[in-house]
Amino acid sequence: MAYDIARIRADFPILSRKVNDRPLVYLDNGASAQKPRAVIDAITEAYSMEYANVHRGLHYLSNLATEKYEAIRGKIARFLNAPSEEEIVFTSGATEGINLVSYAWAAPRLQAGDEIVLSILEHHANIVPWHFLRERQGVVLKWVDCDDKGVLDPQAVIDAIGPRTKLVAISHMSNVTGTVVDVGAICRAAAGQGVPVLVDGSQASVHMPVDVAALGCDFYAITGHKLYGPSGSGGIFIRRERMEEMRPFLGGGDMIREVSRERVTWADPPMKFEAGTPGIVNQIGLGVALDYLTGLGMANIAAHETRLRDYARQRLSGLNWLNIQGDAPDKGAIFSFTLQGAAHAHDISTVLDKKGIAVRAGTHCAMPLMERFRVGATCRASFGLYNTEAEVDALVEALEFCHELFA
Amino acid sequence: MAYDIARIRADFPILSRKVNDRPLVYLDNGASAQKPRAVIDAITEAYSMEYANVHRGLHYLSNLATEKYEAIRGKIARFLNAPSEEEIVFTSGATEGINLVSYAWAAPRLQAGDEIVLSILEHHANIVPWHFLRERQGVVLKWVDCDDKGVLDPQAVIDAIGPRTKLVAISHMSNVTGTVVDVGAICRAAAGQGVPVLVDGSQASVHMPVDVAALGCDFYAITGHKLYGPSGSGGIFIRRERMEEMRPFLGGGDMIREVSRERVTWADPPMKFEAGTPGIVNQIGLGVALDYLTGLGMANIAAHETRLRDYARQRLSGLNWLNIQGDAPDKGAIFSFTLQGAAHAHDISTVLDKKGIAVRAGTHCAMPLMERFRVGATCRASFGLYNTEAEVDALVEALEFCHELFA
Repeated sequence: MAYDIARIRADFPILSRKVNDRPLVYLDNGASAQKPRAVIDAITEAYSMEYANVHRGLHYLSNLATEKYEAIRGKIARFLNAPSEEEIVFTSGATEGINLVSYAWAAPRLQAGDEIVLSILEHHANIVPWHFLRERQGVVLKWVDCDDKGVLDPQAVIDAIGPRTKLVAISHMSNVTGTVVDVGAICRAAAGQGVPVLVDGSQASVHMPVDVAALGCDFYAITGHKLYGPSGSGGIFIRRERMEEMRPFLGGGDMIREVSRERVTWADPPMKFEAGTPGIVNQIGLGVALDYLTGLGMANIAAHETRLRDYARQRLSGLNWLNIQGDAPDKGAIFSFTLQGAAHAHDISTVLDKKGIAVRAGTHCAMPLMERFRVGATCRASFGLYNTEAEVDALVEALEFCHELFA
Repeated sequence: MAYDIARIRADFPILSRKVNDRPLVYLDNGASAQKPRAVIDAITEAYSMEYANVHRGLHYLSNLATEKYEAIRGKIARFLNAPSEEEIVFTSGATEGINLVSYAWAAPRLQAGDEIVLSILEHHANIVPWHFLRERQGVVLKWVDCDDKGVLDPQAVIDAIGPRTKLVAISHMSNVTGTVVDVGAICRAAAGQGVPVLVDGSQASVHMPVDVAALGCDFYAITGHKLYGPSGSGGIFIRRERMEEMRPFLGGGDMIREVSRERVTWADPPMKFEAGTPGIVNQIGLGVALDYLTGLGMANIAAHETRLRDYARQRLSGLNWLNIQGDAPDKGAIFSFTLQGAAHAHDISTVLDKKGIAVRAGTHCAMPLMERFRVGATCRASFGLYNTEAEVDALVEALEFCHELFA
């Protein structure tokens, strides 16, 4: 199938708008992606004509909403090639998913001195929940460094696994450098030592086909708003054996079997981990977003973004006053950079914004990696399925303007 | 201001639809409310033209989204008459709000033998998080009963407070019987003994003006989807002193000040309790819903619903084969009932559904109260701001049909 970028762009209403009198060049996909009309329309339709609470109804609208909502579990399972949709827990995003694992699986199992292996590439969402366990119960965090190109050697992660290691928590793709991590190799080695692996798939799931069965991971967290879906949508794959080891996390309706004054018993997984009225319409929208991605084909999206990455890498590497943080051979179309000289990352993003180009400036929720690269902050241009080579050119042109401005 | 019910109903697209070839009579507001067009349009607009991630940007769309999103904190504060918007934490709903208090305030403070006082009227969302503390750390739950009319004597709650009581967790309005609890009296007495009070305002905030400053409570949880707002929206008022006592709950981006390999420091409250990309557009939609409610006037809504309640009470009490569970003098327009004789609650709701009337059947996430009333399940008709006396008539007529059918 030809990848018809003009048609694809027409699917996203916001891409036709201007910002500061310039056509919007949206290169902040690493933070959150824009939504296709199909997703927006599905939300409108759900609220306008098909809305009710789920699960506990028995009237027409409730059954309709339940059917639409529950169908998303299978869509997420297929999107990740999970063996069973019962291994998918709905979440409000990757942060909730990883905290679920931390509170419900790790906290009751890990003792003082037990270790969690994680990499310097991690996003705060895959750091702070483990710092909680360090602070609260003496768990030890074992950090694995990347090289100067931002490459994470899977063998270094494997070598960090010791007799006290109870979990490896690792990103599949860095949100700062785009580095793709060979989590399959890590999972195979960890499994050989009986150590579960949690994969933060927040970025990778957006940019390439993911197969949790082939990876062999125990947990794989995704987040809907980066997947061109609604705010507050998401899910996490949890291998059945791990689910059985987990106690409940949030308490409330839907996750119980019976509640009395004296005791409470739990619903079967995955419901055991889903308390209260869920993000019904958010999840319905996420399902439409996944259908949209599947319709284009994740392999086609990956191929498009690889072309964009190669073109951007070539163009940006021609700017000899630009420092790019991380340049792994296998990386997504995510570029973090600083300008040599005085300009602060925030000044660059402000200038780019005046030209309609949306990039992010800051620490990208990855302060340990900032420290690793000895930068206080970077600018980040992160591409998505609707971006074009012309937008790469616009970025380069605007950076050249910055260079002159701040030189 | 006249309460123009026809104009109000026209604001809700779904109310013009039919269900099973009958005009929809939506009496399942206790589970979730329908959305006015203004809310749906705001969601569409946010995703179509104004979307980006919040807080961490510096580009136009991110700043725009942040401004719109953060403005909701003040709207919730004013809606609840909270002293400061910094005392509002955004949540995905009341369940997350109450779990936040359980995990971040209660869990690190309560010791084995410490007591939590709660009432038999509570929803599972205000029971299960406390059962966690019982199971995990030996906290004792002290239950306060209601009378046969579903009335909860505030003095009985006050009398249950003892030297080991560390928290009172109480609903402001029962989702089963509509009972309004005098939480102000409870808060005054509890404050005198230095015991914080958490109020589950999931129902009350929808049906009457709420003033947390006047109530004097420490925590007040609300949920957006019942407030005519989007899925996955909500907030909780937390008194400043309690916030200062709380450790973080979910870990991730946005809630930190600094993260290194060795340690992590927290952002100031309320951000300390908000991890990761939030439900941006959900909260924006909730803000519009609160504007809609404020525009109508909560006192006007309450007056309308009181008229509906009185009319429904009068009509339903004329059905001498109907058992109504709970009939407190001060109650919202929520009626739970069973039919004398054979018909199961689910059979009744199914028959009503065939007539286009949406009511809920089941335990309403309130199993202890079901046990109190010695029923396995009930039907519940719960009214909202757009319901009419004609819909009460439709309900009564359909119940009469049920009575004949199952007699």
